[in-house]
Amino acid sequence: METSTFVERRKRLREMVPDGAILILGQAEASRNYPANTYPFRQDSHFSYLTGVSAADLALLILPDGQEALLGPAEDPDDLVWHGPHPLLADHARDAGIRATGDVAALGTRVAELRAKGLKIHYLPPYRGERALKLAAVLGKSADEAAAGASRELARAVVGMRSIKTDREVAEIEKALEVSATMYETAFLLVGEGRTEAEVAGAMQGVALSFDCQQSFAPIVSVHGEVLHNTSYAGTMRAGELLLIDSGVEAAGTLYCSDITRTLPVSGKFLPEQRALYEVVLAAHDAAIALASPKVSNRDLHFAAARAIAAGLKDVGLMRGSTDDAVAAGAHALFFPHGIGHMLGLDVHDMEDLGDVVGYPEGEPRSKQFGLAFLRLAKSLSPGFVVTIEPGIYFVPALIDRWMNEKKHEAFICYDKVERFRAFGGIRLEDDLLVTAGGHRVLGPQIPITVAEVEEAMRRA
Amino acid sequence: METSTFVERRKRLREMVPDGAILILGQAEASRNYPANTYPFRQDSHFSYLTGVSAADLALLILPDGQEALLGPAEDPDDLVWHGPHPLLADHARDAGIRATGDVAALGTRVAELRAKGLKIHYLPPYRGERALKLAAVLGKSADEAAAGASRELARAVVGMRSIKTDREVAEIEKALEVSATMYETAFLLVGEGRTEAEVAGAMQGVALSFDCQQSFAPIVSVHGEVLHNTSYAGTMRAGELLLIDSGVEAAGTLYCSDITRTLPVSGKFLPEQRALYEVVLAAHDAAIALASPKVSNRDLHFAAARAIAAGLKDVGLMRGSTDDAVAAGAHALFFPHGIGHMLGLDVHDMEDLGDVVGYPEGEPRSKQFGLAFLRLAKSLSPGFVVTIEPGIYFVPALIDRWMNEKKHEAFICYDKVERFRAFGGIRLEDDLLVTAGGHRVLGPQIPITVAEVEEAMRRA
Repeated sequence: METSTFVERRKRLREMVPDGAILILGQAEASRNYPANTYPFRQDSHFSYLTGVSAADLALLILPDGQEALLGPAEDPDDLVWHGPHPLLADHARDAGIRATGDVAALGTRVAELRAKGLKIHYLPPYRGERALKLAAVLGKSADEAAAGASRELARAVVGMRSIKTDREVAEIEKALEVSATMYETAFLLVGEGRTEAEVAGAMQGVALSFDCQQSFAPIVSVHGEVLHNTSYAGTMRAGELLLIDSGVEAAGTLYCSDITRTLPVSGKFLPEQRALYEVVLAAHDAAIALASPKVSNRDLHFAAARAIAAGLKDVGLMRGSTDDAVAAGAHALFFPHGIGHMLGLDVHDMEDLGDVVGYPEGEPRSKQFGLAFLRLAKSLSPGFVVTIEPGIYFVPALIDRWMNEKKHEAFICYDKVERFRAFGGIRLEDDLLVTAGGHRVLGPQIPITVAEVEEAMRRA
Repeated sequence: METSTFVERRKRLREMVPDGAILILGQAEASRNYPANTYPFRQDSHFSYLTGVSAADLALLILPDGQEALLGPAEDPDDLVWHGPHPLLADHARDAGIRATGDVAALGTRVAELRAKGLKIHYLPPYRGERALKLAAVLGKSADEAAAGASRELARAVVGMRSIKTDREVAEIEKALEVSATMYETAFLLVGEGRTEAEVAGAMQGVALSFDCQQSFAPIVSVHGEVLHNTSYAGTMRAGELLLIDSGVEAAGTLYCSDITRTLPVSGKFLPEQRALYEVVLAAHDAAIALASPKVSNRDLHFAAARAIAAGLKDVGLMRGSTDDAVAAGAHALFFPHGIGHMLGLDVHDMEDLGDVVGYPEGEPRSKQFGLAFLRLAKSLSPGFVVTIEPGIYFVPALIDRWMNEKKHEAFICYDKVERFRAFGGIRLEDDLLVTAGGHRVLGPQIPITVAEVEEAMRRA
């Protein structure tokens, strides 16, 4: 991105939060099993959005008069010996269009001076121990007090800005999607009987890294697609099973994310029942996408998918009764217990560290209904929103047992038949969508998704 | 590992630290860019050593009378829905041979009760913000106070135990080395003109993950082998360059590490000068290994490598004068500025979170001499020690300039000739070694290391 982009973003943020000082902490390294053994560095998304700089232990300070400073660790002459030639703080500041630099060790003193002048310090809530401790030290408060004092005003302003993606940002998301497409191409050819989940996960991660991309989250690569929080890759694939792959990467340099899910038949051909339910999920995916346009609530996209799922499950004999009534009651959530999707950007769940200010209008809390409660985005769509569309159908034994025992929604659910699908697993299909003035555009290269496309992509030469 | 192994380890630890309570914190998840987006989970090594359990947010409490409790988060019935069937706290306790379980939320209360009885609470120093905050909360102290109160007695006991590897532990390190061997096999075939560092790094990481192994540290895959702290994979390989690869993995399930370095000619054939210096590094590697046996100080292995390097560099015309005098003065450190190696075990730098109690005898501080100061292990070797042997020769422009300006050690260094090697890069060769009663054993399958072996391994069919 160009220097002017970051200058402009900071200027707008300053206008949206006119009073007080704004403090944005960059990321520290994250220790794994001892201090110097760190996980791959990942810049804080807000810091990256406002500066574009990828280096550890920096801080951005913006004063009410618009003066800005990039603070960082003092350069140690030995750094050149151990780390080789690398950009200095002044280079980072120049690239970000920031005039002043300073020693981050003096951040506490500077903040104390600003507070002594009666200025409020706006900062975002910490999401890592290191950030909480840093904030506490800088503010002279306990970690809990520091976390509690985060600025809702700043969070709202950041959400307002980051929610609307420019063409340049969308282009970065599409770069990430290009890498995802290559990863899925690899997976389509690799998946097969006797292969392990780890082999597929490894090959896909290998492709991501070969493009110098980190993955945007720990991928799901599992024959147990019904386990929604699943980071085990210990299974071996057997013919007749489905493999669910949910993965994404971050574009090299800019960190904009992709997030794609596909579900593949291990044997290369869907069994009739798999195919029937797959078509239902695909119909839900298509129904939600078809509805996406400015001013439509993302909750309506969720309901469109839920209705398509309930209607499709009626055809298969797993649900019954009025589709609209079933969805209003939340009966479909036995099979589709999560939301239709979330915002996508510099974070795969964009700005999730800022909470429901991202996805819900002020004063409008989440529904308490099982399923709908997990919808992350319930705002009206605006041009520039990038969202995921990711409906699914799952057979979660623990959930089936619980609902069956409670006879929950038995007017809508054919539990006899559900019993026979207990071991079915799960199907999810996910694409990334840009809301445009005229409607929407599915982002990135086309990744095989119809039954015919998937089976064709899995056919080995 | 068997349950009895963990029972026995805890019993021995209790005997070595007879007074007070022992508190070992398991690992929490590590957030990446927002709370729920976490890095791959990595259990704390001490916790894994004493329990074998891999799950987040646990704690082990051992009382003076030998009573033990495994504390963990209370199970939420929804966990079964979202995470699928998984071992419960009681299952983990059974596997670890621990009788009692409890809610980790009550850890602070339990610790307060123990302290009220006058018991000291032994715990290890925190190395992550989350651990510091957790300790602070449990002890009712500030994070700084909590860190300062870590038990040196407990650290010494843990170091005493973990330094000596059993056959079973060595077998796990060798499992990791089997995976490393496959990773290097892949790299040998992939490295070539026009390929990127990222492609090699990606392919190797892909192999690791395909065995369900995490890498034990962020690998170095670089044509700039002279940059010792280097995690960039942005370069493209050119004929005539050397590619340095330093990487390791953690055995699936047990976390025991491998750590291997090889340096490859991008073209598949070493140039004459590369070959000459490569042979010097290999001679240093062999000299250090040859010396390894019980009661020999690892510092002597370091000096053996340093002498081999100084002697070899004299042959090449880069150094001059008495080898012994040059090494005593530290002149070789222009080319070999780091230590010969470190302990290897559940951490790639084993127990580095505990500081120099691992590598230095009580009361014996590190040397202040440049180079020797970075030697991580200066103790006498004992049977059961597993150490890395990793000499290298590097041409670090910033270091050459600094020393040349100071005319440092000019009696020993031929700066005229060094100038001509400025852009040479770096070579390092590393293997993992078990100290045995009779001497030593290089661990794992043989990975090509001689010039002939490397050039053969790079020859494509």
